Amino acid sequence: MIVIGELINTSREGLEEAVRERDTEFIQDLAKKQADAGASFVDVNCGTLIKEEEEALEWLVEKAQEVVDVPLSIDSPNPEAVKRGLEKHDDEAGQPLVNSITDEEERYEKLLPLIQDYDANVIALCMEDEGMPDDCDDRVRIATSLVDKLKKDGIEEDRIFFDPVIQPIGTDQEMGLHILNAIEEIREKYPDIHITCGLSNISHGMPQRPLLNRAFAVLAMSRGLDSAIIDPLDDHLMSLMTASETLLGNDEGCMNYLKKSRSDDLVV
Amino acid sequence: MIVIGELINTSREGLEEAVRERDTEFIQDLAKKQADAGASFVDVNCGTLIKEEEEALEWLVEKAQEVVDVPLSIDSPNPEAVKRGLEKHDDEAGQPLVNSITDEEERYEKLLPLIQDYDANVIALCMEDEGMPDDCDDRVRIATSLVDKLKKDGIEEDRIFFDPVIQPIGTDQEMGLHILNAIEEIREKYPDIHITCGLSNISHGMPQRPLLNRAFAVLAMSRGLDSAIIDPLDDHLMSLMTASETLLGNDEGCMNYLKKSRSDDLVV
Repeated sequence: MIVIGELINTSREGLEEAVRERDTEFIQDLAKKQADAGASFVDVNCGTLIKEEEEALEWLVEKAQEVVDVPLSIDSPNPEAVKRGLEKHDDEAGQPLVNSITDEEERYEKLLPLIQDYDANVIALCMEDEGMPDDCDDRVRIATSLVDKLKKDGIEEDRIFFDPVIQPIGTDQEMGLHILNAIEEIREKYPDIHITCGLSNISHGMPQRPLLNRAFAVLAMSRGLDSAIIDPLDDHLMSLMTASETLLGNDEGCMNYLKKSRSDDLVV
Repeated sequence: MIVIGELINTSREGLEEAVRERDTEFIQDLAKKQADAGASFVDVNCGTLIKEEEEALEWLVEKAQEVVDVPLSIDSPNPEAVKRGLEKHDDEAGQPLVNSITDEEERYEKLLPLIQDYDANVIALCMEDEGMPDDCDDRVRIATSLVDKLKKDGIEEDRIFFDPVIQPIGTDQEMGLHILNAIEEIREKYPDIHITCGLSNISHGMPQRPLLNRAFAVLAMSRGLDSAIIDPLDDHLMSLMTASETLLGNDEGCMNYLKKSRSDDLVV
Protein backbone atom coordinates (compact mmCIF):
# COMPACT_ATOMS: atom_id res chain seq x y z
CA MET A 1 0.00 0.00 0.00
CA ILE A 2 1.42 3.34 -1.04
CA VAL A 3 0.42 5.76 1.69
CA ILE A 4 0.42 9.49 0.93
CA GLY A 5 0.51 11.37 4.25
CA GLU A 6 -2.06 14.16 4.20
CA LEU A 7 -1.32 16.06 7.42
CA ILE A 8 0.69 19.02 6.09
CA ASN A 9 -2.23 20.97 4.70
CA THR A 10 -3.08 24.54 5.65
CA SER A 11 -6.80 23.75 5.62
CA ARG A 12 -6.17 21.76 8.84
CA GLU A 13 -6.36 23.55 12.18
CA GLY A 14 -3.19 25.32 13.24
CA LEU A 15 -1.35 24.62 10.00
CA GLU A 16 -1.98 27.90 8.23
CA GLU A 17 -0.50 29.76 11.17
CA ALA A 18 2.50 27.44 11.31
CA VAL A 19 3.23 27.98 7.62
CA ARG A 20 2.70 31.76 7.79
CA GLU A 21 5.13 31.95 10.70
CA ARG A 22 7.56 29.59 8.93
CA ASP A 23 7.56 27.32 11.98
CA THR A 24 10.19 24.89 10.73
CA GLU A 25 10.14 22.68 13.80
CA PHE A 26 6.38 22.17 13.66
CA ILE A 27 6.38 21.26 9.97
CA GLN A 28 9.42 19.02 10.19
CA ASP A 29 7.96 17.17 13.16
CA LEU A 30 4.77 16.49 11.19
CA ALA A 31 6.71 15.38 8.12
CA LYS A 32 8.92 13.06 10.14
CA LYS A 33 6.08 11.49 12.10
CA GLN A 34 4.27 10.60 8.88
CA ALA A 35 7.32 9.09 7.21
CA ASP A 36 8.12 7.14 10.38
CA ALA A 37 4.55 5.83 10.45
CA GLY A 38 4.93 4.42 6.95
CA ALA A 39 4.02 7.18 4.47
CA SER A 40 5.61 6.58 1.06
CA PHE A 41 5.05 10.24 0.12
CA VAL A 42 4.51 13.25 2.38
CA ASP A 43 1.97 15.65 0.87
CA VAL A 44 2.50 19.40 1.20
CA ASN A 45 -0.43 21.73 0.56
CA CYS A 46 -0.76 25.40 1.44
CA GLY A 47 -3.64 26.22 -0.87
CA THR A 48 -5.45 28.40 1.65
CA LEU A 49 -2.66 30.97 1.52
CA ILE A 50 -3.58 31.94 -2.07
CA LYS A 51 -1.28 34.89 -2.86
CA GLU A 52 1.60 33.53 -0.84
CA GLU A 53 1.08 29.94 -1.98
CA GLU A 54 4.00 29.74 -4.38
CA GLU A 55 6.60 30.97 -1.94
CA ALA A 56 5.13 28.97 0.94
CA LEU A 57 5.02 25.72 -1.06
CA GLU A 58 8.68 26.16 -1.99
CA TRP A 59 9.49 26.63 1.70
CA LEU A 60 7.42 23.57 2.69
CA VAL A 61 9.22 21.38 0.17
CA GLU A 62 12.59 22.61 1.34
CA LYS A 63 11.90 22.09 5.02
CA ALA A 64 9.97 18.81 4.82
CA GLN A 65 12.55 17.03 2.69
CA GLU A 66 15.35 17.90 5.07
CA VAL A 67 13.99 15.44 7.65
CA VAL A 68 12.44 12.57 5.67
CA ASP A 69 13.85 9.97 3.33
CA VAL A 70 10.72 9.67 1.22
CA PRO A 71 9.72 11.91 -1.70
CA LEU A 72 7.07 14.60 -1.35
CA SER A 73 3.67 15.02 -2.92
CA ILE A 74 3.45 18.57 -4.20
CA ASP A 75 -0.19 19.45 -3.85
CA SER A 76 -1.59 22.40 -5.76
CA PRO A 77 -3.63 23.09 -8.89
CA ASN A 78 -1.41 26.15 -9.49
CA PRO A 79 1.28 25.31 -12.08
CA GLU A 80 3.62 28.05 -10.87
CA ALA A 81 3.46 26.77 -7.28
CA VAL A 82 3.99 23.19 -8.47
CA LYS A 83 6.98 24.33 -10.55
CA ARG A 84 8.63 26.05 -7.59
CA GLY A 85 8.02 22.99 -5.45
CA LEU A 86 9.52 20.67 -8.06
CA GLU A 87 12.57 22.91 -8.46
CA LYS A 88 13.31 22.60 -4.76
CA HIS A 89 12.68 18.84 -4.58
CA ASP A 90 16.03 17.06 -4.46
CA ASP A 91 14.84 13.64 -5.76
CA GLU A 92 17.45 11.84 -3.67
CA ALA A 93 14.71 9.92 -1.88
CA GLY A 94 12.79 9.27 -5.10
CA GLN A 95 10.80 11.13 -7.73
CA PRO A 96 8.17 13.54 -6.40
CA LEU A 97 4.43 13.21 -6.91
CA VAL A 98 2.43 16.05 -8.46
CA ASN A 99 -1.01 16.30 -6.84
CA SER A 100 -2.83 16.68 -9.19
CA ILE A 101 -3.54 16.83 -12.89
CA THR A 102 -7.10 16.46 -14.20
CA ASP A 103 -8.81 16.04 -17.55
CA GLU A 104 -9.58 19.78 -17.61
CA GLU A 105 -7.90 21.13 -20.73
CA GLU A 106 -6.15 24.17 -19.27
CA ARG A 107 -4.92 22.42 -16.13
CA TYR A 108 -3.72 19.45 -18.16
CA GLU A 109 -1.80 21.58 -20.66
CA LYS A 110 -0.06 23.61 -17.97
CA LEU A 111 0.88 20.76 -15.62
CA LEU A 112 1.92 18.14 -18.18
CA PRO A 113 5.24 19.78 -19.16
CA LEU A 114 6.26 19.98 -15.50
CA ILE A 115 5.55 16.28 -14.98
CA GLN A 116 7.53 15.49 -18.13
CA ASP A 117 10.45 17.79 -17.34
CA TYR A 118 10.85 16.66 -13.74
CA ASP A 119 10.14 12.95 -14.33
CA ALA A 120 7.48 13.23 -11.67
CA ASN A 121 4.79 10.82 -10.63
CA VAL A 122 1.31 12.29 -10.89
CA ILE A 123 -2.10 11.99 -9.29
CA ALA A 124 -4.67 11.98 -12.09
CA LEU A 125 -7.82 13.29 -10.46
CA CYS A 126 -11.11 12.23 -12.01
CA MET A 127 -12.36 15.65 -13.17
CA GLU A 128 -13.08 17.07 -16.59
CA ASP A 129 -14.14 20.46 -17.94
CA GLU A 130 -17.77 19.42 -17.47
CA GLY A 131 -17.12 18.88 -13.75
CA MET A 132 -16.99 15.99 -11.30
CA PRO A 133 -18.05 12.40 -12.02
CA ASP A 134 -21.44 11.15 -10.85
CA ASP A 135 -21.45 7.37 -11.15
CA CYS A 136 -19.23 4.43 -12.01
CA ASP A 137 -19.47 4.91 -15.79
CA ASP A 138 -18.40 8.56 -15.51
CA ARG A 139 -15.34 7.53 -13.54
CA VAL A 140 -14.32 4.79 -15.96
CA ARG A 141 -14.83 7.11 -18.95
CA ILE A 142 -12.74 9.93 -17.44
CA ALA A 143 -10.07 7.47 -16.26
CA THR A 144 -9.76 6.09 -19.78
CA SER A 145 -9.49 9.53 -21.34
CA LEU A 146 -6.97 10.80 -18.79
CA VAL A 147 -4.76 7.72 -18.52
CA ASP A 148 -4.62 7.25 -22.31
CA LYS A 149 -3.72 10.92 -22.73
CA LEU A 150 -0.95 10.72 -20.11
CA LYS A 151 0.45 7.56 -21.67
CA LYS A 152 0.43 9.15 -25.12
CA ASP A 153 2.32 12.06 -23.59
CA GLY A 154 5.05 9.78 -22.29
CA ILE A 155 4.00 9.19 -18.70
CA GLU A 156 4.34 5.46 -17.96
CA GLU A 157 1.48 3.66 -16.19
CA ASP A 158 3.47 3.15 -12.99
CA ARG A 159 3.92 6.92 -12.61
CA ILE A 160 0.16 7.51 -12.73
CA PHE A 161 -1.91 7.52 -9.53
CA PHE A 162 -5.56 7.65 -10.61
CA ASP A 163 -7.92 9.16 -8.01
CA PRO A 164 -11.60 8.32 -8.74
CA VAL A 165 -12.85 11.25 -6.55
CA ILE A 166 -14.49 10.14 -3.36
CA GLN A 167 -17.82 11.81 -2.58
CA PRO A 168 -19.69 11.37 0.71
CA ILE A 169 -21.81 8.29 1.31
CA GLY A 170 -24.15 10.56 3.30
CA THR A 171 -25.27 12.34 0.13
CA ASP A 172 -25.88 9.20 -1.95
CA GLN A 173 -26.20 5.70 -0.56
CA GLU A 174 -24.98 4.29 -3.89
CA MET A 175 -21.76 6.35 -3.83
CA GLY A 176 -19.69 3.57 -2.28
CA LEU A 177 -20.76 1.15 -5.01
CA HIS A 178 -20.13 3.67 -7.80
CA ILE A 179 -16.57 4.14 -6.58
CA LEU A 180 -15.83 0.48 -5.77
CA ASN A 181 -17.14 -0.73 -9.11
CA ALA A 182 -15.15 1.98 -10.89
CA ILE A 183 -11.96 0.95 -9.08
CA GLU A 184 -12.54 -2.66 -10.13
CA GLU A 185 -13.10 -1.77 -13.79
CA ILE A 186 -10.19 0.65 -13.95
CA ARG A 187 -7.87 -1.86 -12.27
CA GLU A 188 -8.83 -4.49 -14.83
CA LYS A 189 -8.25 -2.06 -17.70
CA TYR A 190 -4.93 -0.66 -16.42
CA PRO A 191 -3.23 -3.28 -14.23
CA ASP A 192 -0.02 -1.24 -13.90
CA ILE A 193 -1.30 2.16 -12.80
CA HIS A 194 -1.74 3.03 -9.15
CA ILE A 195 -5.21 3.80 -7.84
CA THR A 196 -5.38 6.18 -4.90
CA CYS A 197 -8.04 8.31 -3.19
CA GLY A 198 -8.67 11.01 -0.64
CA LEU A 199 -10.21 8.39 1.61
CA SER A 200 -11.84 10.44 4.35
CA ASN A 201 -14.17 12.25 1.94
CA ILE A 202 -16.36 9.13 2.02
CA SER A 203 -17.41 9.84 5.62
CA HIS A 204 -17.95 13.61 5.33
CA GLY A 205 -20.93 14.68 7.42
CA MET A 206 -21.33 11.27 9.10
CA PRO A 207 -20.74 10.28 12.73
CA GLN A 208 -17.87 7.99 13.75
CA ARG A 209 -15.99 8.88 10.59
CA PRO A 210 -12.88 6.74 11.20
CA LEU A 211 -15.06 3.63 11.16
CA LEU A 212 -16.39 4.39 7.67
CA ASN A 213 -12.92 5.39 6.48
CA ARG A 214 -11.39 2.11 7.67
CA ALA A 215 -14.14 -0.05 6.20
CA PHE A 216 -13.98 1.80 2.89
CA ALA A 217 -10.19 1.46 2.67
CA VAL A 218 -10.48 -2.33 2.98
CA LEU A 219 -13.47 -2.60 0.62
CA ALA A 220 -11.55 -0.58 -1.99
CA MET A 221 -8.36 -2.60 -1.54
CA SER A 222 -10.41 -5.68 -2.32
CA ARG A 223 -11.23 -4.12 -5.70
CA GLY A 224 -7.76 -2.88 -6.61
CA LEU A 225 -6.92 0.27 -4.64
CA ASP A 226 -3.17 0.23 -3.93
CA SER A 227 -2.63 3.70 -2.52
CA ALA A 228 -4.46 6.18 -0.30
CA ILE A 229 -4.14 9.78 0.81
CA ILE A 230 -4.65 9.43 4.55
CA ASP A 231 -3.47 10.26 8.04
CA PRO A 232 -0.68 7.71 8.53
CA LEU A 233 -0.83 8.33 12.28
CA ASP A 234 -4.21 6.52 12.41
CA ASP A 235 -2.81 3.25 13.79
CA HIS A 236 -6.07 1.37 13.41
CA LEU A 237 -6.37 2.24 9.74
CA MET A 238 -2.71 1.47 9.07
CA SER A 239 -2.98 -1.90 10.87
CA LEU A 240 -6.11 -2.89 8.95
CA MET A 241 -4.39 -2.00 5.69
CA THR A 242 -1.35 -4.08 6.64
CA ALA A 243 -3.61 -7.05 7.42
CA SER A 244 -5.48 -6.53 4.15
CA GLU A 245 -2.27 -6.52 2.11
CA THR A 246 -1.32 -9.83 3.72
CA LEU A 247 -4.76 -11.32 3.02
CA LEU A 248 -4.63 -10.11 -0.60
CA GLY A 249 -1.46 -12.10 -1.25
CA ASN A 250 0.89 -9.12 -1.33
CA ASP A 251 3.02 -10.20 1.63
CA GLU A 252 5.40 -13.08 0.93
CA GLY A 253 5.23 -15.62 3.71
CA CYS A 254 3.22 -13.05 5.73
CA MET A 255 6.64 -11.66 6.70
CA ASN A 256 5.63 -8.01 6.74
CA TYR A 257 2.63 -8.75 8.97
CA LEU A 258 4.70 -10.88 11.34
CA LYS A 259 7.50 -8.29 11.48
CA LYS A 260 5.09 -5.47 12.26
CA SER A 261 3.37 -7.61 14.84
CA ARG A 262 6.67 -8.34 16.58
CA SER A 263 7.65 -4.68 16.68
CA ASP A 264 4.26 -3.70 18.14
CA ASP A 265 3.30 -1.76 15.03
CA LEU A 266 -0.12 -3.40 14.78
CA VAL A 267 -3.07 -2.34 16.92
CA VAL A 268 -6.13 -4.51 17.42
CA MET B 1 -25.22 -9.14 7.12
CA ILE B 2 -26.57 -12.39 8.49
CA VAL B 3 -24.54 -13.11 11.60
CA ILE B 4 -24.41 -16.67 12.93
CA GLY B 5 -23.27 -16.52 16.57
CA GLU B 6 -20.60 -19.15 17.18
CA LEU B 7 -20.09 -19.02 20.94
CA ILE B 8 -22.12 -22.04 22.06
CA ASN B 9 -19.61 -24.69 21.05
CA THR B 10 -18.17 -27.29 23.39
CA SER B 11 -14.75 -26.96 21.76
CA ARG B 12 -14.53 -23.54 23.49
CA GLU B 13 -13.10 -23.34 26.98
CA GLY B 14 -15.59 -24.02 29.77
CA LEU B 15 -18.41 -24.93 27.43
CA GLU B 16 -18.09 -28.71 27.53
CA GLU B 17 -18.36 -28.61 31.30
CA ALA B 18 -21.38 -26.29 31.16
CA VAL B 19 -23.18 -28.62 28.76
CA ARG B 20 -22.27 -31.77 30.68
CA GLU B 21 -23.64 -30.19 33.85
CA ARG B 22 -26.70 -28.91 32.00
CA ASP B 23 -25.95 -25.39 33.23
CA THR B 24 -29.07 -23.73 31.81
CA GLU B 25 -28.26 -20.26 33.08
CA PHE B 26 -24.79 -20.25 31.50
CA ILE B 27 -26.04 -21.40 28.11
CA GLN B 28 -29.07 -19.11 28.09
CA ASP B 29 -26.91 -16.12 29.00
CA LEU B 30 -24.59 -16.87 26.09
CA ALA B 31 -27.50 -17.34 23.70
CA LYS B 32 -29.18 -14.12 24.78
CA LYS B 33 -26.02 -12.02 24.61
CA GLN B 34 -25.40 -13.13 21.03
CA ALA B 35 -28.96 -12.44 19.89
CA ASP B 36 -28.90 -9.06 21.63
CA ALA B 37 -25.63 -8.23 19.87
CA GLY B 38 -27.25 -8.83 16.48
CA ALA B 39 -26.91 -12.53 15.69
CA SER B 40 -29.56 -13.67 13.17
CA PHE B 41 -28.96 -17.32 14.14
CA VAL B 42 -27.45 -18.73 17.33
CA ASP B 43 -25.31 -21.78 16.59
CA VAL B 44 -25.34 -24.75 18.96
CA ASN B 45 -22.56 -27.33 18.74
CA CYS B 46 -21.62 -30.02 21.23
CA GLY B 47 -19.55 -32.18 18.91
CA THR B 48 -16.85 -32.87 21.49
CA LEU B 49 -19.29 -34.88 23.60
CA ILE B 50 -19.45 -37.65 20.96
CA LYS B 51 -21.57 -40.35 22.64
CA GLU B 52 -23.80 -37.89 24.43
CA GLU B 53 -24.01 -35.48 21.48
CA GLU B 54 -27.56 -36.30 20.40
CA GLU B 55 -29.12 -35.83 23.81
CA ALA B 56 -26.99 -32.77 24.58
CA LEU B 57 -27.84 -31.08 21.28
CA GLU B 58 -31.54 -31.60 21.93
CA TRP B 59 -31.10 -29.99 25.34
CA LEU B 60 -29.11 -27.06 23.89
CA VAL B 61 -31.82 -26.36 21.31
CA GLU B 62 -34.52 -26.49 23.96
CA LYS B 63 -32.74 -24.19 26.39
CA ALA B 64 -31.30 -21.69 23.91
CA GLN B 65 -34.56 -21.07 22.11
CA GLU B 66 -36.38 -20.29 25.34
CA VAL B 67 -34.52 -16.98 25.66
CA VAL B 68 -33.94 -15.71 22.12
CA ASP B 69 -36.28 -14.60 19.37
CA VAL B 70 -34.02 -15.75 16.53
CA PRO B 71 -33.79 -19.25 15.08
CA LEU B 72 -30.93 -21.59 15.91
CA SER B 73 -28.18 -23.07 13.79
CA ILE B 74 -28.03 -26.79 14.55
CA ASP B 75 -24.40 -27.67 14.14
CA SER B 76 -23.42 -31.31 13.70
CA PRO B 77 -22.41 -33.71 10.94
CA ASN B 78 -24.41 -36.41 12.76
CA PRO B 79 -27.85 -36.83 11.13
CA GLU B 80 -29.40 -38.29 14.26
CA ALA B 81 -28.23 -35.36 16.39
CA VAL B 82 -29.47 -32.89 13.75
CA LYS B 83 -32.83 -34.66 13.66
CA ARG B 84 -33.29 -34.44 17.40
CA GLY B 85 -32.34 -30.77 17.34
CA LEU B 86 -34.78 -30.02 14.52
CA GLU B 87 -37.57 -31.84 16.34
CA LYS B 88 -37.14 -29.59 19.36
CA HIS B 89 -36.85 -26.37 17.34
CA ASP B 90 -40.13 -24.48 17.58
CA ASP B 91 -39.75 -22.37 14.39
CA GLU B 92 -41.72 -19.49 15.92
CA ALA B 93 -38.73 -17.19 15.47
CA GLY B 94 -38.03 -18.52 11.96
CA GLN B 95 -36.80 -21.65 10.25
CA PRO B 96 -33.66 -23.24 11.71
CA LEU B 97 -30.34 -23.55 9.94
CA VAL B 98 -28.67 -26.94 9.55
CA ASN B 99 -24.87 -26.63 9.87
CA SER B 100 -23.86 -28.35 7.64
CA ILE B 101 -24.39 -30.46 4.54
CA THR B 102 -21.46 -31.17 2.18
CA ASP B 103 -20.96 -32.69 -1.24
CA GLU B 104 -19.88 -35.98 0.42
CA GLU B 105 -22.33 -38.59 -0.82
CA GLU B 106 -23.23 -40.25 2.47
CA ARG B 107 -23.56 -37.02 4.44
CA TYR B 108 -25.63 -35.46 1.66
CA GLU B 109 -28.02 -38.39 1.41
CA LYS B 110 -28.61 -38.55 5.15
CA LEU B 111 -29.05 -34.84 5.84
CA LEU B 112 -31.07 -33.86 2.77
CA PRO B 113 -34.37 -35.45 3.90
CA LEU B 114 -34.14 -33.61 7.22
CA ILE B 115 -33.66 -30.27 5.49
CA GLN B 116 -36.59 -31.06 3.21
CA ASP B 117 -38.90 -32.33 5.96
CA TYR B 118 -38.24 -29.47 8.37
CA ASP B 119 -38.11 -26.69 5.74
CA ALA B 120 -34.73 -25.79 7.15
CA ASN B 121 -32.08 -23.43 5.87
CA VAL B 122 -28.74 -25.13 5.30
CA ILE B 123 -25.06 -24.35 5.34
CA ALA B 124 -23.51 -26.03 2.30
CA LEU B 125 -19.89 -26.58 3.25
CA CYS B 126 -17.38 -26.77 0.43
CA MET B 127 -16.25 -30.39 0.89
CA GLU B 128 -16.52 -33.46 -1.30
CA ASP B 129 -15.64 -37.13 -0.94
CA GLU B 130 -12.17 -36.31 -2.28
CA GLY B 131 -11.63 -33.86 0.60
CA MET B 132 -11.26 -30.13 1.09
CA PRO B 133 -10.83 -27.56 -1.69
CA ASP B 134 -7.37 -26.18 -2.51
CA ASP B 135 -7.81 -23.16 -4.70
CA CYS B 136 -10.44 -20.90 -6.22
CA ASP B 137 -11.38 -23.30 -9.03
CA ASP B 138 -11.97 -26.16 -6.58
CA ARG B 139 -14.32 -23.98 -4.58
CA VAL B 140 -16.31 -22.84 -7.59
CA ARG B 141 -16.56 -26.40 -8.91
CA ILE B 142 -17.79 -27.81 -5.58
CA ALA B 143 -20.17 -24.85 -5.07
CA THR B 144 -21.69 -25.50 -8.48
CA SER B 145 -22.13 -29.21 -7.83
CA LEU B 146 -23.58 -28.74 -4.36
CA VAL B 147 -25.87 -25.78 -5.04
CA ASP B 148 -27.25 -27.33 -8.24
CA LYS B 149 -27.90 -30.59 -6.39
CA LEU B 150 -29.69 -28.83 -3.53
CA LYS B 151 -31.81 -26.82 -5.96
CA LYS B 152 -32.74 -29.96 -7.88
CA ASP B 153 -33.74 -31.48 -4.56
CA GLY B 154 -36.13 -28.63 -3.84
CA ILE B 155 -34.04 -26.33 -1.64
CA GLU B 156 -34.51 -22.76 -2.88
CA GLU B 157 -31.40 -20.55 -3.33
CA ASP B 158 -32.31 -18.27 -0.43
CA ARG B 159 -32.27 -21.21 1.98
CA ILE B 160 -28.70 -22.13 0.99
CA PHE B 161 -25.71 -20.65 2.87
CA PHE B 162 -22.60 -21.66 0.93
CA ASP B 163 -19.42 -21.81 3.01
CA PRO B 164 -16.26 -21.81 0.84
CA VAL B 165 -14.12 -23.27 3.69
CA ILE B 166 -11.64 -20.82 5.14
CA GLN B 167 -8.11 -22.13 5.55
CA PRO B 168 -5.32 -20.22 7.33
CA ILE B 169 -3.40 -17.47 5.53
CA GLY B 170 -0.39 -18.57 7.56
CA THR B 171 -0.15 -21.84 5.63
CA ASP B 172 -0.53 -20.33 2.15
CA GLN B 173 -0.12 -16.66 1.32
CA GLU B 174 -2.46 -17.07 -1.67
CA MET B 175 -5.28 -18.50 0.45
CA GLY B 176 -7.02 -15.14 0.90
CA LEU B 177 -7.09 -14.61 -2.86
CA HIS B 178 -8.34 -18.14 -3.55
CA ILE B 179 -11.27 -17.57 -1.22
CA LEU B 180 -12.04 -13.98 -2.23
CA ASN B 181 -11.99 -14.82 -5.93
CA ALA B 182 -14.18 -17.86 -5.29
CA ILE B 183 -16.71 -15.76 -3.39
CA GLU B 184 -16.85 -13.30 -6.27
CA GLU B 185 -17.39 -16.01 -8.90
CA ILE B 186 -19.96 -17.89 -6.84
CA ARG B 187 -21.86 -14.67 -6.06
CA GLU B 188 -22.00 -13.86 -9.76
CA LYS B 189 -23.25 -17.36 -10.61
CA TYR B 190 -25.83 -17.59 -7.81
CA PRO B 191 -27.00 -14.07 -6.90
CA ASP B 192 -29.72 -15.34 -4.55
CA ILE B 193 -27.84 -17.76 -2.32
CA HIS B 194 -26.18 -16.63 0.89
CA ILE B 195 -22.43 -16.91 1.23
CA THR B 196 -21.12 -17.41 4.74
CA CYS B 197 -17.88 -18.57 6.36
CA GLY B 198 -16.21 -19.59 9.59
CA LEU B 199 -14.27 -16.34 9.51
CA SER B 200 -11.67 -16.81 12.22
CA ASN B 201 -10.06 -19.82 10.53
CA ILE B 202 -8.26 -17.33 8.27
CA SER B 203 -6.08 -16.15 11.16
CA HIS B 204 -5.32 -19.55 12.72
CA GLY B 205 -1.73 -19.63 14.00
CA MET B 206 -1.12 -15.90 13.42
CA PRO B 207 -0.63 -13.12 15.97
CA GLN B 208 -3.24 -10.38 16.49
CA ARG B 209 -5.92 -12.63 15.06
CA PRO B 210 -8.86 -10.20 15.41
CA LEU B 211 -7.12 -7.78 13.06
CA LEU B 212 -6.88 -10.37 10.27
CA ASN B 213 -10.45 -11.51 10.95
CA ARG B 214 -11.83 -7.98 10.67
CA ALA B 215 -9.90 -7.15 7.51
CA PHE B 216 -10.92 -10.44 5.89
CA ALA B 217 -14.60 -9.91 6.74
CA VAL B 218 -14.59 -6.56 4.94
CA LEU B 219 -12.54 -7.84 1.98
CA ALA B 220 -14.99 -10.73 1.57
CA MET B 221 -18.06 -8.48 1.89
CA SER B 222 -16.65 -6.46 -0.99
CA ARG B 223 -16.80 -9.64 -3.13
CA GLY B 224 -20.25 -10.84 -2.09
CA LEU B 225 -20.12 -12.41 1.38
CA ASP B 226 -23.45 -11.66 3.10
CA SER B 227 -23.19 -13.82 6.21
CA ALA B 228 -20.53 -14.93 8.68
CA ILE B 229 -20.12 -17.38 11.53
CA ILE B 230 -18.48 -15.19 14.15
CA ASP B 231 -18.41 -13.97 17.72
CA PRO B 232 -21.14 -11.31 17.66
CA LEU B 233 -19.76 -9.88 20.91
CA ASP B 234 -16.69 -8.58 18.99
CA ASP B 235 -17.88 -4.95 18.82
CA HIS B 236 -15.10 -3.86 16.51
CA LEU B 237 -15.90 -6.54 13.96
CA MET B 238 -19.65 -5.89 14.19
CA SER B 239 -19.12 -2.12 13.78
CA LEU B 240 -16.88 -2.57 10.75
CA MET B 241 -19.45 -4.88 9.17
CA THR B 242 -22.21 -2.33 9.80
CA ALA B 243 -20.10 0.39 8.17
CA SER B 244 -19.32 -1.92 5.25
CA GLU B 245 -23.01 -2.69 4.66
CA THR B 246 -23.68 1.05 4.51
CA LEU B 247 -20.81 1.63 2.09
CA LEU B 248 -21.97 -1.27 -0.10
CA GLY B 249 -25.35 0.38 -0.66
CA ASN B 250 -27.31 -1.97 1.59
CA ASP B 251 -28.49 0.68 4.04
CA GLU B 252 -31.22 2.98 2.75
CA GLY B 253 -30.41 6.58 3.57
CA CYS B 254 -27.65 5.25 5.86
CA MET B 255 -30.43 4.91 8.46
CA ASN B 256 -29.12 1.74 10.07
CA TYR B 257 -25.66 3.24 10.49
CA LEU B 258 -27.06 6.47 11.93
CA LYS B 259 -29.40 4.62 14.27
CA LYS B 260 -26.64 2.38 15.59
CA SER B 261 -24.37 5.39 15.98
CA ARG B 262 -27.01 7.23 18.04
CA SER B 263 -27.56 4.25 20.32
CA ASP B 264 -23.81 3.87 20.90
CA ASP B 265 -23.73 0.51 19.14
CA LEU B 266 -20.72 1.45 17.01
CA VAL B 267 -17.17 1.41 18.33
CA VAL B 268 -14.32 3.23 16.63
